[in-house]
Amino acid sequence: MKIGIIGLGLIGSSLGLALRQRGHQVLGVSRTEPICHLAQARRIVDEASPHFSLLATTEIVFICTPMSAIAPTLESLIPHLIPETIITDVGSVKTAVVGACSPLWHNFVGGHPLAGTERSGIDAAQPDLFKNAPYVLTPTDTTPTESVKILQELITSLGAVVQVCTPTEHDQAVAWISHLPVMISAGLVKTVSEEQDVTLLELAQTLASSGFRDTSRVGGGNPELGVMMAKYNQKALARSLHHYRRNLDQIIDLIEQEQWQSLQQIFEATRRDRSKFLR
Amino acid sequence: MKIGIIGLGLIGSSLGLALRQRGHQVLGVSRTEPICHLAQARRIVDEASPHFSLLATTEIVFICTPMSAIAPTLESLIPHLIPETIITDVGSVKTAVVGACSPLWHNFVGGHPLAGTERSGIDAAQPDLFKNAPYVLTPTDTTPTESVKILQELITSLGAVVQVCTPTEHDQAVAWISHLPVMISAGLVKTVSEEQDVTLLELAQTLASSGFRDTSRVGGGNPELGVMMAKYNQKALARSLHHYRRNLDQIIDLIEQEQWQSLQQIFEATRRDRSKFLR
Repeated sequence: MKIGIIGLGLIGSSLGLALRQRGHQVLGVSRTEPICHLAQARRIVDEASPHFSLLATTEIVFICTPMSAIAPTLESLIPHLIPETIITDVGSVKTAVVGACSPLWHNFVGGHPLAGTERSGIDAAQPDLFKNAPYVLTPTDTTPTESVKILQELITSLGAVVQVCTPTEHDQAVAWISHLPVMISAGLVKTVSEEQDVTLLELAQTLASSGFRDTSRVGGGNPELGVMMAKYNQKALARSLHHYRRNLDQIIDLIEQEQWQSLQQIFEATRRDRSKFLR
Repeated sequence: MKIGIIGLGLIGSSLGLALRQRGHQVLGVSRTEPICHLAQARRIVDEASPHFSLLATTEIVFICTPMSAIAPTLESLIPHLIPETIITDVGSVKTAVVGACSPLWHNFVGGHPLAGTERSGIDAAQPDLFKNAPYVLTPTDTTPTESVKILQELITSLGAVVQVCTPTEHDQAVAWISHLPVMISAGLVKTVSEEQDVTLLELAQTLASSGFRDTSRVGGGNPELGVMMAKYNQKALARSLHHYRRNLDQIIDLIEQEQWQSLQQIFEATRRDRSKFLR
């Protein structure tokens, strides 16, 4: 197939490598000329350009820009396309993106590969990034079924495991397993760091080991990414946070009222339930 | 030196191996006869017995029982000892233990090695367990300075990094970096598992990856250990949880009021501050 990729960061470049490995013709667009040269030199794409006109006759276009640029990119892209082109994105929140893009292009299918590394950018590109990773597609009632099918087959060929659901379902699921953990983890770092007794703070810093390291990891990550989750998934995240706070209150109450048996039951349930998320 | 160890689980057995490696004579006491035989056969101790009389002339005794058994063990042990014996424990909360044990034995020094593995029991014993790990000693105003010094030198010889502080300081520090993370992590697992929409719950379980895995790890651990932290460190933990809840409320408010700039500042601070705990 003839496939376009807009935005040559970690996801866009990795898609380029993976798709070329499978014999597709890949055309890349980046605003940044040096990135275009690099992508071509490293054979991430067959051809690259800062101009959307390069993508005129592509069958599928992946928009791999940051979330805030997805809809504006689509608007600028539209005048260059043939009507048959399927457009998809890789944004990590779907309701807002699909709501903005579907009215602009009838053949738009929201997408979200749950793949990543600690590193970002074209230098971190790897063709196996999607292997065994979940990849969510979020068609709406008006999305052409045939377009979803074509995308699903293409993505499956990269080794990813496709999940199809609504944008709302996607956003609530990632609020639970990705965005809520970031907020409660950031809250942990903030709270401990606010210890006013310097001796005590330094002691805590010295004694911190794997438990603190793991629980605080996602809360100490990229600030822009944290804000982006909150901004674009505000509704589902707020709902998750309120639910979380009620449970936290319950745990605090049990501790203050010395209800050790009930607390034990909670821990027994969390040990059992956690394993269901890590299959 | 002639050193006694009561309780031959992970910590007690590892201490035995480490101390014998350094030429000390190690005498072990376990209620369970087969454990005594095993400890002797594996050269974890020089000699083992279910009877405290074995420890009559030891210079130092490590009480390595579960927290609830430390003070009762000390009471039963006392009639068998010479007055010079230094007694220490390895319990992970110190105010309660030191408060109960110091009045019973003038030469008692509270201790807490922050060392462990996922596994427990004598089978998990390893002589290098304490290497580079923090080991806290919590003397009080009445603890003989010489006893603290002797213990400090012995523990340092095992490769551990000794920190000396008060029981209260210790308990607040571990509340911050160990016990608070367990509670907020358990709250995460509980909250996400309460999703009532089965399709959504299964989607969340499918999409969960490293972020959820790390943030939920300590909350899905040993239930008895979680209750023990709450029970023995109730005061410091409750204080930490209330502070945490205030910060969580602030994060929820910022998200609901769309204060993205302030939220960004929080994430910038948490990224910076987290690194101070992982030196």
